Amino acid sequence: MEEVEIKKLVKDVESLYDAGKLDIILNVVESLHPVDLAEVYQHLTTDTREQVFHLLDSDTASAVLVELDQPLQQEILEDIDSGRLTEIVQELESDDMTDLVSQLSSETAHQLLSAMDKEDSDEVRELLLHPEKSAGGIMAKEFVSVDESRTVDEAIAELRSRADEVQDVYYIFVVDDRGILVGFLSLKKLILSPSLARVNTVMNRDVISVKTDRDQEEVAHIVKKYDLVSIPVVDDSGILVGRITIDDVMDVVDEEASEDIHKMAGIGEEARLRESSPFRMSRVRLPWLITGLVGGLFAAVILSHFEQSLSKIIALSFFTPVIMSMGGSIGIQSSTIVVRGLATGEISFIDSYKHLYKEMKVSLINGFICSVILFGVAVIWQDIKLGILLGGSLFLIMNVAALVGALAPLLLRKVQVDPAIATGPFITISNDIVGLIIYFSLSTLILG
Amino acid sequence: MEEVEIKKLVKDVESLYDAGKLDIILNVVESLHPVDLAEVYQHLTTDTREQVFHLLDSDTASAVLVELDQPLQQEILEDIDSGRLTEIVQELESDDMTDLVSQLSSETAHQLLSAMDKEDSDEVRELLLHPEKSAGGIMAKEFVSVDESRTVDEAIAELRSRADEVQDVYYIFVVDDRGILVGFLSLKKLILSPSLARVNTVMNRDVISVKTDRDQEEVAHIVKKYDLVSIPVVDDSGILVGRITIDDVMDVVDEEASEDIHKMAGIGEEARLRESSPFRMSRVRLPWLITGLVGGLFAAVILSHFEQSLSKIIALSFFTPVIMSMGGSIGIQSSTIVVRGLATGEISFIDSYKHLYKEMKVSLINGFICSVILFGVAVIWQDIKLGILLGGSLFLIMNVAALVGALAPLLLRKVQVDPAIATGPFITISNDIVGLIIYFSLSTLILG
Repeated sequence: MEEVEIKKLVKDVESLYDAGKLDIILNVVESLHPVDLAEVYQHLTTDTREQVFHLLDSDTASAVLVELDQPLQQEILEDIDSGRLTEIVQELESDDMTDLVSQLSSETAHQLLSAMDKEDSDEVRELLLHPEKSAGGIMAKEFVSVDESRTVDEAIAELRSRADEVQDVYYIFVVDDRGILVGFLSLKKLILSPSLARVNTVMNRDVISVKTDRDQEEVAHIVKKYDLVSIPVVDDSGILVGRITIDDVMDVVDEEASEDIHKMAGIGEEARLRESSPFRMSRVRLPWLITGLVGGLFAAVILSHFEQSLSKIIALSFFTPVIMSMGGSIGIQSSTIVVRGLATGEISFIDSYKHLYKEMKVSLINGFICSVILFGVAVIWQDIKLGILLGGSLFLIMNVAALVGALAPLLLRKVQVDPAIATGPFITISNDIVGLIIYFSLSTLILG
Repeated sequence: MEEVEIKKLVKDVESLYDAGKLDIILNVVESLHPVDLAEVYQHLTTDTREQVFHLLDSDTASAVLVELDQPLQQEILEDIDSGRLTEIVQELESDDMTDLVSQLSSETAHQLLSAMDKEDSDEVRELLLHPEKSAGGIMAKEFVSVDESRTVDEAIAELRSRADEVQDVYYIFVVDDRGILVGFLSLKKLILSPSLARVNTVMNRDVISVKTDRDQEEVAHIVKKYDLVSIPVVDDSGILVGRITIDDVMDVVDEEASEDIHKMAGIGEEARLRESSPFRMSRVRLPWLITGLVGGLFAAVILSHFEQSLSKIIALSFFTPVIMSMGGSIGIQSSTIVVRGLATGEISFIDSYKHLYKEMKVSLINGFICSVILFGVAVIWQDIKLGILLGGSLFLIMNVAALVGALAPLLLRKVQVDPAIATGPFITISNDIVGLIIYFSLSTLILG
């Protein structure tokens, strides 16, 4: 649904609410996809949305609840009576259940868990044990599996018996008598196989799975690489314990891309925007600003050491900004290419030297072109000596900055540190400092 | 498969090749998943990989071919004889076929298309008509659809008859007698429905589809929003013409995130890394470097206008870098938050003012803290007048830069320009210039 339609619906619901026509609101609301309903819901006034949520049956209410941003979820969770909460939460799949429970105060969570069916609460308790960003932390306990000795017909019966509980089924997982994952069957294959065939004669044995402790980013990589729509999760002994569906993988991909983009801009983990107060938001951004400030003061100290040159040749200071910013720009370019290449898998460790070599060629070309331009401008505007100084410094600085930019993420990954921090302000600040030192050292050398 | 395993396999295959044991290579190669085989293939020497490719049956060869990067695909396409090429290409689904054909010289493409089955070549010709980044450009013609008047059993028969041609099936699309999309059936639902039920009594009528001319980024948004694994594509009259599967959507998501990240770093559309020569790579990065150079020279001109102040109070030049870089940093932070928020849909137009307001609060807080620190340092190091100048300028500059950074992407999106360019060097350069002007204007005002 388009933004304009959402906007119109919000208006409609608000005026229906003002006119007290709750029954018409219910009609409107029931005709919407839960995803669209959640979007409308977000933009309603507090009073209206409280009333609207009360109107929903527990099935729709749970579908809307998972789509909402955390602050709005919180609002509902705090507001709702515990009977209804239990009803709504039990409609959810176990991964969404776990996400919700982890947001509650430990007292409310405890209450909710005791009110739930034992099976559901056991699942949630198990899922809560896994780190949030691991395969175990994002998997759901809802999946369909059959023993390998069963027939296709029995697999279909199993699917039927679990149909209400497991929303989206694309594969049926096949396990042996110890519960160890040994294969899978796509539903297409299931439909097309003879009904009396044994599952282990028709299943695909090349099943790709992940262990519970696998990092969510790696899970996303695997799912993308092998074009899966759902991936089974196994424990250390290979026993099937859960599955991760593609929609959750999509969320991971978005989350990780946002994280990288934010790191590039010197923004800490901000999780979601809507949920944060300005104070929390300033706190995640302040560290890099302070680092930048310290770096800038350091630059000031360096400049003050060259006070004599600066006061003799005032034109030196005209070009400080351009010298510094060009090193920053080319450094960001080369580090970004490498960081993103590592993140998407386009650059692998096997061929990282090749890339480094290519980056250096690129910086030699671009450094040369920019230096010649700066040389020309300086000669025309000032004199040839300054031209040589500026052209020479710029060439040197741009190549050093590009090398640092490309090398830093590779080294960071080698020592298991997230390479994305190399694209952040850290590289820019170091390049600033190195640039200044090169520029003023050369100036002493060339201009005396 | 892990990188170390790939590395080991590459070594093994190379030494088997040197020993002339092609039959063992074939065994190794046949045991691999095509995705892993493609990765091994990329790292083989030219001679070896040519031989290995010759060993593969056309089914495996086509699966490997689509996984390779463009330059390696080119190598194969140029090398292979036309009979085998036709065989391999016909194993592909129509979207991959089209991607391959679009890479060939028009002569080779023409030859290939005439050698192919008429049905396949017609499909490719049709797909080539759509813009590369539209729904029509990424869709495949392979899907399973049934007329709404058919029964569940007939739908299964249709699935069976198309099973070889259509690899991954998750939904069966339902059309009316004019071919207009009217609903869909998940395979789960298909399995669980009575075999004699009419399709239109069991299908889901809330089918979400996109038109052929829809931008691929919007398609990805819709698929993510509604948690789909495949989305039908319709023409202007609503007739079903193709489908896009989640794996292609995943590629779009990665591609678009890379594009945004590259734009942030002032890198033009580089498509894929591996395929580019250093000259092509420098060309896509040079424009922003030149822009930065011009911006820096502009800064030099501004500084030269304040030559008198600079020569009188040399300390002014010490702080030019910190003043400029802080404006740049905070501007990038706020523009990045807004650009990424717009890209993921976290910020919608409906609440953009709320975000702008929040961004301003954040910049007031962080600007204040940084200014107080700079004021303190300047007072201790130099004098109170310089402290007031620096603290005042920094506060003003940081808030202006943050406002510009947050506002620019919103305005750009309003006029239908990609907001991501606002995170690029453009904002940094404008902030540099504005910062310098504020700093030196205030210095004339305060220091006389």
